Amino acid sequence: MADSRSDKLLRKDLLGIEDLSKEEIDLILNTADAFKEVLTRDIKKVPTLRGRTVVNLFLEPSTRTRMSFEIAGKRLSADTINISAQASSLVKGESLLDMAKNLEAMNPDFIVIRHPVPGAPHMLARMCRFSVINAGDGAHEHPTQALLDMFTIREKKGQLSGLKIAIVGDITHSRVARSNIYGLTRMGAHVRVIGPPTFIPPYIEDLGVDVKFDLQEGIKDRDIIMMLRIQKERERRNLFPSIREYASLFCLTKERLSRVSEECLIMHPGPINRGVEIEPEVADGKHSVILDQVTNGIAVRMALLYLLLGDKNEA
Amino acid sequence: MADSRSDKLLRKDLLGIEDLSKEEIDLILNTADAFKEVLTRDIKKVPTLRGRTVVNLFLEPSTRTRMSFEIAGKRLSADTINISAQASSLVKGESLLDMAKNLEAMNPDFIVIRHPVPGAPHMLARMCRFSVINAGDGAHEHPTQALLDMFTIREKKGQLSGLKIAIVGDITHSRVARSNIYGLTRMGAHVRVIGPPTFIPPYIEDLGVDVKFDLQEGIKDRDIIMMLRIQKERERRNLFPSIREYASLFCLTKERLSRVSEECLIMHPGPINRGVEIEPEVADGKHSVILDQVTNGIAVRMALLYLLLGDKNEA
Amino acid sequence: MADSRSDKLLRKDLLGIEDLSKEEIDLILNTADAFKEVLTRDIKKVPTLRGRTVVNLFLEPSTRTRMSFEIAGKRLSADTINISAQASSLVKGESLLDMAKNLEAMNPDFIVIRHPVPGAPHMLARMCRFSVINAGDGAHEHPTQALLDMFTIREKKGQLSGLKIAIVGDITHSRVARSNIYGLTRMGAHVRVIGPPTFIPPYIEDLGVDVKFDLQEGIKDRDIIMMLRIQKERERRNLFPSIREYASLFCLTKERLSRVSEECLIMHPGPINRGVEIEPEVADGKHSVILDQVTNGIAVRMALLYLLLGDKNEA
Repeated sequence: MADSRSDKLLRKDLLGIEDLSKEEIDLILNTADAFKEVLTRDIKKVPTLRGRTVVNLFLEPSTRTRMSFEIAGKRLSADTINISAQASSLVKGESLLDMAKNLEAMNPDFIVIRHPVPGAPHMLARMCRFSVINAGDGAHEHPTQALLDMFTIREKKGQLSGLKIAIVGDITHSRVARSNIYGLTRMGAHVRVIGPPTFIPPYIEDLGVDVKFDLQEGIKDRDIIMMLRIQKERERRNLFPSIREYASLFCLTKERLSRVSEECLIMHPGPINRGVEIEPEVADGKHSVILDQVTNGIAVRMALLYLLLGDKNEA
Repeated sequence: MADSRSDKLLRKDLLGIEDLSKEEIDLILNTADAFKEVLTRDIKKVPTLRGRTVVNLFLEPSTRTRMSFEIAGKRLSADTINISAQASSLVKGESLLDMAKNLEAMNPDFIVIRHPVPGAPHMLARMCRFSVINAGDGAHEHPTQALLDMFTIREKKGQLSGLKIAIVGDITHSRVARSNIYGLTRMGAHVRVIGPPTFIPPYIEDLGVDVKFDLQEGIKDRDIIMMLRIQKERERRNLFPSIREYASLFCLTKERLSRVSEECLIMHPGPINRGVEIEPEVADGKHSVILDQVTNGIAVRMALLYLLLGDKNEA
Repeated sequence: MADSRSDKLLRKDLLGIEDLSKEEIDLILNTADAFKEVLTRDIKKVPTLRGRTVVNLFLEPSTRTRMSFEIAGKRLSADTINISAQASSLVKGESLLDMAKNLEAMNPDFIVIRHPVPGAPHMLARMCRFSVINAGDGAHEHPTQALLDMFTIREKKGQLSGLKIAIVGDITHSRVARSNIYGLTRMGAHVRVIGPPTFIPPYIEDLGVDVKFDLQEGIKDRDIIMMLRIQKERERRNLFPSIREYASLFCLTKERLSRVSEECLIMHPGPINRGVEIEPEVADGKHSVILDQVTNGIAVRMALLYLLLGDKNEA
């Protein structure tokens, strides 16, 4: 796979979608296509990363993203090592920077990091030789989620350019929204964000999206509706009146969905709050590609690990 | 190993002993015999499950069972992935069903699940393509424990049929007791349950066992005595008067054991409460096969992973 | 590597430095030299421990030591299994001894143990067939840290014999100090311990070291200064007046360091409390070999796993 020199991603890290070019996104998605084929085999394993070490450093709880990266690494024959917040020496008060320098001294090839502070992966990447993959930094970016979303849309619709996409929910606090806005607009799709005014950050239009405060009106002409997870824990902090009120206005119900095109796809990064942002019938219905997103996450992450290894592949 | 077509376990999952036939149990125990030989080698590893993924999903704390499955998987060259309760997205309130569909979308070959709710593994198995192995579901079943118990008895006694077996302790709340009762009676052994009346469920005789409330009388003619772990945390909930009183009546002491046959074997699923249900001298004494049970657990679990892979072995 | 019979470490376990001979330490450091070369390769992996199982049993929180052993094991192609305190059956009240016998029944090749109680690894080693490596037992020993420290000094200085070394901090409660005192004096270095009187155990001179209570005077003629981590949590327990007062007297500052030789090396076992026992400029400065220590830890631990496997390597 990827024999010619033009198949290289000429960067050490994947920190966000914001600074990826259209060509880079195309390269990642095309490479993921090839790896998706590997995943259909009976023995879903290739020796590409044998002897390489992938450290999954998760400083926020996560099952699915950590597991997706762990599977991606193992299917490439890498050694994978997990570090979680509670087990980490951060409990002894070590700074992230000291931790990073120590990790670097152990010579891993990749650090996949999820961190509550925006920019933490970027600092790691600047200070260290290893490749850093951002698996979510605060409310900033979650680039592998956006890449698997774009892969899934392209797989189902054939292309990204020209599509009309809605992203619905708490846009202000969503790293998934931010990464998708960057990626989808770069690829020529039209993005609309939908939510109550308190969930729409000011000047969001400057990112090239339009805004609607009414769900039904906002989704009516869309090819793709991407629902965001509501962080229930924010309710207590009075960031919105109530879950019940939110759901009454913004839950994607079967009834609301009945007024959009038959070909419209429903996406969600998971985990789902059934009955809050999405009705069970919709999450499990014929429009939904939510589980395709999960499957594709492994292929996209394999592609990234492969591409970021770069010239070392020649060795 | 297992070349002929008749060596297949014609089921996708191992959820309980209740619905296993005598032939299936024999097949599992015979296959475990072959894997036990592998474990005596210097390099205790075979390539059988190379490229396969075994997810250990433990939603109750466990070291030994999780570790036994992890070693079994690794010795078959599978990739193993651990998910524990606190790390899991269940902390974000995701339902088991959604978690299962997400796991399935990542295409693992096996999910080994321990869950506090009886029937949780069955639901997983019904909903998903992957093979499910029940590693303990509430007070319902713990089939791999019963299989390793049967394997150990057969190894020491040559057969199961006709043996007289006692299971002593809190029968009502024990998944180990339940799985062993199903398996041992199916294989032709006679099972007696022993404990205080509050620990013996009504109508237990319908499962083909007899009941004694007196330990000394109950064990006197037995070939095997299987002691159950007392859940000390139940004391607080007044399910029995006191640990001290329980131990005075039902602890297997050296003195009590001196009145049974020299050939009688003592078993315990672990972890042991020394001095509560069993005296240290008995746990560590010549009758005890408690550590053989642990060793055999790996062989039995390797056999199950191998057999459940079924026709895929041909690929 | 290590073909001749004289290259064997004739012991089952590595429990401490106290009972290692000069020849054994030389053998370990020489073997680590060879493994350090492996770590410079593009594919940092050798098949030496294929089919072997290394269990990392960490009953105190740790990231770096556990990760160093996990990487060492994986680079030797061993299967590695992690057990941490909270996940372990110790939460069910099982004794370490019962846990050990159960681990043994699963036939691992190595148990790497960190335990808060001094002597816990020794008990494990006495009771069990597997090889035990002490990864820190209370305030007793941390032998692999001392070995990687000696490896690093030897690498930088060419030898250990004749060097003048200072160890600074809470000598009384430091397993790192104790293991280094044993090892460095055995190898012919002169060791001085420096700290406030409450941190210097009585009769420490019997171990062949001298004592200074003044940092500047103590370090002035030294080739190596080894700073210990201050356990901030002890402050609350009134074991010393205040962190602030300690730092004013014993923090290794750039200013204090300016009065020692240009060739003096600064070491620290990590994690660092910047501004408490060491100034950031010193930790990151040209004298510092702190990150070399981390890198060398992997090579030293690979060497130990290799050497302790002993005759089994011939199989």
